[in-house]
Amino acid sequence: MTASPITFWFDFASGYAFFAAREIEALGARVGRPVLWRPFLLGTAFRVTGGRGLSSTPLKQDYARRDWQRLARRAGIVLAPHANHPAITLPAARAFYWIDARDPDLARRFARDVFDSIFTAGLDGTSAEAIADQAAALGIDRAALLAGLADPALKEQVKRISEEAVAGGVFGSPFFVVDGEPFWGADRMGMMEEWIRSGGW
Amino acid sequence: MTASPITFWFDFASGYAFFAAREIEALGARVGRPVLWRPFLLGTAFRVTGGRGLSSTPLKQDYARRDWQRLARRAGIVLAPHANHPAITLPAARAFYWIDARDPDLARRFARDVFDSIFTAGLDGTSAEAIADQAAALGIDRAALLAGLADPALKEQVKRISEEAVAGGVFGSPFFVVDGEPFWGADRMGMMEEWIRSGGW
Repeated sequence: MTASPITFWFDFASGYAFFAAREIEALGARVGRPVLWRPFLLGTAFRVTGGRGLSSTPLKQDYARRDWQRLARRAGIVLAPHANHPAITLPAARAFYWIDARDPDLARRFARDVFDSIFTAGLDGTSAEAIADQAAALGIDRAALLAGLADPALKEQVKRISEEAVAGGVFGSPFFVVDGEPFWGADRMGMMEEWIRSGGW
Repeated sequence: MTASPITFWFDFASGYAFFAAREIEALGARVGRPVLWRPFLLGTAFRVTGGRGLSSTPLKQDYARRDWQRLARRAGIVLAPHANHPAITLPAARAFYWIDARDPDLARRFARDVFDSIFTAGLDGTSAEAIADQAAALGIDRAALLAGLADPALKEQVKRISEEAVAGGVFGSPFFVVDGEPFWGADRMGMMEEWIRSGGW
């Protein structure tokens, strides 16, 4: 019997998801749970909550920028996003699901690489060409992926996944669900680990 | 030389501030920092950020209610707020500063009692009479406090403190500032403790 997974919901443009993505596989390994990576479009949630991105909210934007920098310093990372960051990283999310349909393990590696590149190497997450380059570096067929990204069925799939996530109560990034229990935010990964270990309380 | 304090900004109606209030004095003692309790009106921040209370935000409200319950179970607390909760607890904030001007230690005890009563004993934080009862239980002159609560100067003081907090970057509850470094959320108390112990990074 396979242990039920930790579902890891995220938007590739989310700074806190970037930090969470660096830790979640190790957490899953410690508690014996696989991690199901699930990019979605945070904008879909914002339309329901009335929220907006941290980077476009007065006061919170200054706090978040400072907070990301201190999290990065602690992790020994130098943040170097593209000038257009944060922007809607639709091609990254679509590419993830195109790869995931063919090789889930490869999709996970792709997701980790994309996060690293968006936040530390100036990858333009809005560019299908740049995303295809990133995939090609993992041996993925660049032309086939680009053709896939233009497929209306893939676009519809990502839209549907995002809507289903929000309908299921997912409203932030990162957002985790394990055994039906939701945990919002990279800050709550410790609590989630405690929850899994103890069987809940 | 006195160590510079941890300023603890909060709104008496904030569930996460209630949980933080139970822990902050012990944290301050562990790191040798006094704690400066500073109630303010979260609504003042919402006018700048465009945010609104968790309890009135779709999706987040369901998550927050569930999260408060699991935090309470872990702490061995049974939550029992007044039927009108969360409501604007202006009388509580005003009473705090009226007491603080006379006896800061007593104001802190009052704040802790008010939090406990609002969240576990159905205190109506919008009622000056109920707040005065709470103060009277600590030996505070009930009639003098009620007269103070009606003083326009006190009302203006709480308004000004809230505006100054927001102008200084405070936008949430709880929100901590120590040595000029901001930490938002009860979830960040561990990081703040680490920051103080290490001298920052």
